[in-house]
Amino acid sequence: MERHSDHRQHTLEHENISLKEKYLFIRKYSEEICKPLEQEDYVVQPTVDVSPPKWHLAHTTWFFEEFILCKYDKDYKRFNSKFSYLFNSYYNTVGDRVLRLDRGNMSRPTVEEIYQYRKYVDDHMLELLDYLPAEANYVLEVGFNHEQQHQELLFTDIKYILGHNPLFPPYKTGFVETLYPEINNTFAFIPEGEYTIGYSGYGFSYDNEHGVHRVLLKPYHIRKSLVTNQEYLDFINDGGYTRWEYWHSDGWEWVKQNNITAPLYWYSIEGKWYRYSLSGLETLNRDEPVTHISFYEASALAAWKGMRLPTEFEWEAAADQFNWGQRWEHTNSAYLPYPGYSKPDGALGEYNGKFMVNTMVLRGASVATPPNHSRKSYRNFFYPQLRWQFNGIRLCKDNQ
Amino acid sequence: MERHSDHRQHTLEHENISLKEKYLFIRKYSEEICKPLEQEDYVVQPTVDVSPPKWHLAHTTWFFEEFILCKYDKDYKRFNSKFSYLFNSYYNTVGDRVLRLDRGNMSRPTVEEIYQYRKYVDDHMLELLDYLPAEANYVLEVGFNHEQQHQELLFTDIKYILGHNPLFPPYKTGFVETLYPEINNTFAFIPEGEYTIGYSGYGFSYDNEHGVHRVLLKPYHIRKSLVTNQEYLDFINDGGYTRWEYWHSDGWEWVKQNNITAPLYWYSIEGKWYRYSLSGLETLNRDEPVTHISFYEASALAAWKGMRLPTEFEWEAAADQFNWGQRWEHTNSAYLPYPGYSKPDGALGEYNGKFMVNTMVLRGASVATPPNHSRKSYRNFFYPQLRWQFNGIRLCKDNQ
Amino acid sequence: MERHSDHRQHTLEHENISLKEKYLFIRKYSEEICKPLEQEDYVVQPTVDVSPPKWHLAHTTWFFEEFILCKYDKDYKRFNSKFSYLFNSYYNTVGDRVLRLDRGNMSRPTVEEIYQYRKYVDDHMLELLDYLPAEANYVLEVGFNHEQQHQELLFTDIKYILGHNPLFPPYKTGFVETLYPEINNTFAFIPEGEYTIGYSGYGFSYDNEHGVHRVLLKPYHIRKSLVTNQEYLDFINDGGYTRWEYWHSDGWEWVKQNNITAPLYWYSIEGKWYRYSLSGLETLNRDEPVTHISFYEASALAAWKGMRLPTEFEWEAAADQFNWGQRWEHTNSAYLPYPGYSKPDGALGEYNGKFMVNTMVLRGASVATPPNHSRKSYRNFFYPQLRWQFNGIRLCKDNQ
Amino acid sequence: MERHSDHRQHTLEHENISLKEKYLFIRKYSEEICKPLEQEDYVVQPTVDVSPPKWHLAHTTWFFEEFILCKYDKDYKRFNSKFSYLFNSYYNTVGDRVLRLDRGNMSRPTVEEIYQYRKYVDDHMLELLDYLPAEANYVLEVGFNHEQQHQELLFTDIKYILGHNPLFPPYKTGFVETLYPEINNTFAFIPEGEYTIGYSGYGFSYDNEHGVHRVLLKPYHIRKSLVTNQEYLDFINDGGYTRWEYWHSDGWEWVKQNNITAPLYWYSIEGKWYRYSLSGLETLNRDEPVTHISFYEASALAAWKGMRLPTEFEWEAAADQFNWGQRWEHTNSAYLPYPGYSKPDGALGEYNGKFMVNTMVLRGASVATPPNHSRKSYRNFFYPQLRWQFNGIRLCKDNQ
Repeated sequence: MERHSDHRQHTLEHENISLKEKYLFIRKYSEEICKPLEQEDYVVQPTVDVSPPKWHLAHTTWFFEEFILCKYDKDYKRFNSKFSYLFNSYYNTVGDRVLRLDRGNMSRPTVEEIYQYRKYVDDHMLELLDYLPAEANYVLEVGFNHEQQHQELLFTDIKYILGHNPLFPPYKTGFVETLYPEINNTFAFIPEGEYTIGYSGYGFSYDNEHGVHRVLLKPYHIRKSLVTNQEYLDFINDGGYTRWEYWHSDGWEWVKQNNITAPLYWYSIEGKWYRYSLSGLETLNRDEPVTHISFYEASALAAWKGMRLPTEFEWEAAADQFNWGQRWEHTNSAYLPYPGYSKPDGALGEYNGKFMVNTMVLRGASVATPPNHSRKSYRNFFYPQLRWQFNGIRLCKDNQ
Repeated sequence: MERHSDHRQHTLEHENISLKEKYLFIRKYSEEICKPLEQEDYVVQPTVDVSPPKWHLAHTTWFFEEFILCKYDKDYKRFNSKFSYLFNSYYNTVGDRVLRLDRGNMSRPTVEEIYQYRKYVDDHMLELLDYLPAEANYVLEVGFNHEQQHQELLFTDIKYILGHNPLFPPYKTGFVETLYPEINNTFAFIPEGEYTIGYSGYGFSYDNEHGVHRVLLKPYHIRKSLVTNQEYLDFINDGGYTRWEYWHSDGWEWVKQNNITAPLYWYSIEGKWYRYSLSGLETLNRDEPVTHISFYEASALAAWKGMRLPTEFEWEAAADQFNWGQRWEHTNSAYLPYPGYSKPDGALGEYNGKFMVNTMVLRGASVATPPNHSRKSYRNFFYPQLRWQFNGIRLCKDNQ
Repeated sequence: MERHSDHRQHTLEHENISLKEKYLFIRKYSEEICKPLEQEDYVVQPTVDVSPPKWHLAHTTWFFEEFILCKYDKDYKRFNSKFSYLFNSYYNTVGDRVLRLDRGNMSRPTVEEIYQYRKYVDDHMLELLDYLPAEANYVLEVGFNHEQQHQELLFTDIKYILGHNPLFPPYKTGFVETLYPEINNTFAFIPEGEYTIGYSGYGFSYDNEHGVHRVLLKPYHIRKSLVTNQEYLDFINDGGYTRWEYWHSDGWEWVKQNNITAPLYWYSIEGKWYRYSLSGLETLNRDEPVTHISFYEASALAAWKGMRLPTEFEWEAAADQFNWGQRWEHTNSAYLPYPGYSKPDGALGEYNGKFMVNTMVLRGASVATPPNHSRKSYRNFFYPQLRWQFNGIRLCKDNQ
Repeated sequence: MERHSDHRQHTLEHENISLKEKYLFIRKYSEEICKPLEQEDYVVQPTVDVSPPKWHLAHTTWFFEEFILCKYDKDYKRFNSKFSYLFNSYYNTVGDRVLRLDRGNMSRPTVEEIYQYRKYVDDHMLELLDYLPAEANYVLEVGFNHEQQHQELLFTDIKYILGHNPLFPPYKTGFVETLYPEINNTFAFIPEGEYTIGYSGYGFSYDNEHGVHRVLLKPYHIRKSLVTNQEYLDFINDGGYTRWEYWHSDGWEWVKQNNITAPLYWYSIEGKWYRYSLSGLETLNRDEPVTHISFYEASALAAWKGMRLPTEFEWEAAADQFNWGQRWEHTNSAYLPYPGYSKPDGALGEYNGKFMVNTMVLRGASVATPPNHSRKSYRNFFYPQLRWQFNGIRLCKDNQ
């Protein structure tokens, strides 16, 4: 079964569009995501894991400037020589970086200047695309996928910014975070056997999903639908957050130190549950798949159900058996290299490998993932205590 | 000798202007201070001691709404019932407060909405001023002085926001932080005797300067001019920041833990000293009075000179002997109540008394202080490690 | 009225004992204080403000070694050359220091070795005292007073160590923290006038109490007895810790951040109040003067009573009107230099002056102060949030 | 090849000793480890990851009291009812726990009392062992292995305590941390294939190594000897700690924030390298296997060599090809459950499963591991930033 088609208008409908069309399509989509924002919303950074929208707009632009224009356009002059310093992210190979914490303190460059920066780079890119050498194609594809990843971050970070504002302003009235109900609570059975893992197609893919290899799996059952808000509420009402036996040691410390009692964006007001979604603060819909829960919470809920989370291999081996794509799905796999993995040389080498410790793998895609960006072999990763992604819980159990 | 007249245009030239004129004058000045800002500059809060300009604009407005309109205008309807919560500062008497740290994360209400809020409150205030009962006059005066204090904070906070931006944007080209040179390095001699301290005039004054009383002073010498950048550089070059013997114990810890090596806003670039002023990043002018130094630094410099800082009483007794008004002047007096001081009842009671521990007294006024706001008996206060005020150093020594 | 005589056996009964007798008496008393300890009690440091008893025993010994033996005994060889580094405290003039935080991690040198160190230094000192030049007399007196100050710290730190042990072991059964009841709740009236402040006698005194000077005081009333546990309980029961209006801004933050609800060492067990004293965990005696309260708490209680704390000058001017000596008494005076104060040169110059910021003055003496150590002009100092001293509250009010 | 026999005297030479003999043997060994200690060494806790030796002695005793005596000896009376609270570790199922941080502040119970506690429990255990029901055998074995794990912790924690004391006292002169040289730098080749992982013998083993399963491995080469101090020095001298490209993102932050420049216990004194070992501070022996390096450092060194760390499966599949047992060996495997793993019910259920997030697997054994305690399938785990274990680096590389 394929990932469900959704309400999102902006799909790259056929693969054989031109590079220019693709470039424009992707670049334009980032700006469309920001259209409902007030200018002030572009600027703030309420927590270290979230970046201001204007930073995303500039950083994705810097990527094309740094890795394509500066390399392949001999006459190119940077828009502003300081931007390389300001809008670099984690690429240690490209000089000094601004401390991440400071991003939310930078009122300048202004939003207007950043849109000018985008236009300037786009104009030069469109010219360059006519005669870009083939060797640059891979970096260009990385640039596209990089911008798509930041499109997803734009959604999550905008949600964090508006969802932590005491006025709870909606991002867009009618925005739907759940595209279709997940009602099939039956389990698919996957027999013991050898399964192939990793990306073996011809399209773009990341280095972390290469190294196709076979794994041996024991038989297991995996649920066809995600855990719902109602099920999560049952866990809460059964004292889930107060019973250590369901939690990892670090998860239990996290619950106690941060006084966690519900998913992010849930608010109990006068005895009634609400949740902030991108359409505003609304009564909790109990049939939606739960979202904004940490790995610790996902794992505790599964333990409370007497089940467990799937490994990323179990997930990939079974992915054709269920609908996926509404939530990034927690797995019980640490984010580690596949056999034979080696970091590419140079700046792009940092992209994935350096995060392969302390993070857990998320599989699937979410309602905020740009269309055509994810695939069955895609490996997303997340620290186990974080919650600002649109992530969800799929249950798994052994064959007994 | 009186405080030097300066370049600032917006003076209340005569005392007998109408209350409406005064109201409009003061309210308009806050907005004029903000005119050179980009919209993004209104939003950010780079450190906990600094507030976003839009917060200042809203908070001063809230003061008039809360303490005058809501009390004396029967038909008044609040602009937005949540603003009382959002723009209260430290007034514990008026319900819950937003955590100060969060001010810089609030993209909403927008700058535009806050200007609408100002207009709404101003319109109602101007109507009300025609028939405001006399009992409200004191609170109205507090509102004026309160807004003037925030006008000074607008300058200091804007400086912090722009001066910590890697692009070092000027606030206003040609803005002058030193209105006149201070070149008279001679000392005034003040003989032993009994001196009167505190405010005894008829104008507005704060409770903290009431309780006029006599103090006995030993003879002392006090310098007519402030310490210059050149003198401070000499201190630095003589190892001032590396010699514990000049420092308080807490000051020495502060230097080491924060790796302090120069005043705030000083930058050494390729062996040459620069300082950020509101007119931009410029070569250090060595004849200007040094500014943006903490009490610890002021005290260490004085010790290095073999002198000391004056007490606030010594300052007040000698103030007619020298020009003052360019920098808030560090004193070696802790901020404590005068004899007979008691906090007023109600919300305004919090204004001063609650800060009377852990802070040190600053005397005088600075280039950022609104005209007519300060006076010889005015008691400003500041934590000993902070530096974002336009403060300076006046030397004092015993008669030997 | 003089400070009440007490149960403490070890008094220097007459002033004309020999220096050797005095030396031995004081040195022996430190060791007697430690007699009830288990060896393990000498080692730990439960909080940064408390030092392990073995550190006190070594540090006071180091003082005589460093400032007397090394200077005046030509043939002296240090017991262990590393001890200078290990047992220095804050004397920046004598080389590098161990981080204070690490004191509680040092299992070596052992307690036994430290007693050997004491004996070694004592033996050499007793020899040297026969021919010590007169110029050394002042430093010797500082050494005596320094050790006496650490004797008081031995009591407070032992109390902290045992009083934070879950087994609540008594230090010494029958140890009395309140020597006599304070039952005279009347107020002494002190008329307006000029009063002399500071030490002008011939005995030992610290530089911080020199600079005798006159101050002008307004009339006031000061209570003859200290605030009792019962009065403090009334404050608690009236919601004292939940009503911001009685607190300084910093005090209120301290209460909330540390969840303070009672004095240090008070425990509410099944609805009944207990307090840990050096004789063990016992039912709260409501007639004792309250102790182990911070300046913030003392000030809040006074505000709740509609009164205030005395200044240190008011305290000194009135001290002959009441019994004092059971508790160090909080004053509303910041610890600042007297007129004409200047730090002595060299290592001893650090003794007092460097603490003259951020601390408040305590006056009087406590049950843990060695006999003959304090006097009416003695200026003790303490950070406003700390509570491990035996401090108490004396109320003051203006004449109305 | 089997784990090399070593100098350690106290081996359980044959398996068919009686339970009583085994009990006594293991219990006595803990006390022998502590024999060289001074009493003060038992008490301190220099960092949160290290426990005071007296705590280990009491905690292992509490295990037998809690899980065997209280359950199987009807007449048993606890030695002290508070000890259950004081010496519980992480077993959330057995009531409240002392905060780990506080362990180093507890001077009481004394070392003497803890030895009395051990004797009391031992006496009762020896009586009980005569008629202990068979169902208790597993818990008894857990108790033995639990005490052995703490014997290893006694070595590592004593090293931390003495190795962070400025006097660098030796634990035991002549103590050897490297039992035999590792000089065979050749690589074993392991062909592609299916390998069996997990414990399938009849002896004691932990739940985390059960769930025997097959894994598919790609071909690889694994080095027969561990990385030496000399090789690690080469890494340092080549700028290893200053070149981000060898590090994980979190590892790089760790290096910078903690200013890491060498393994734990290495000291560069006047240009010469020393390391503290349990025999004292000595010149660095360049031929010894490097130890006390974090996962981050191990991984960076491997990257610098152009190689990588083995996975725990690669390690286990190859373990018969090399000597192991001198150092716990870092693997690039996160500590996660084997297929079919489920936590046992009750208190023992917490033993392993709750740590299965954020930690990495160590394989092998170290010079501090009690004889007969480890085995090829044994899974130890450690946070990636910690260094106080005797861990080492084994290199691995793909077949190319």
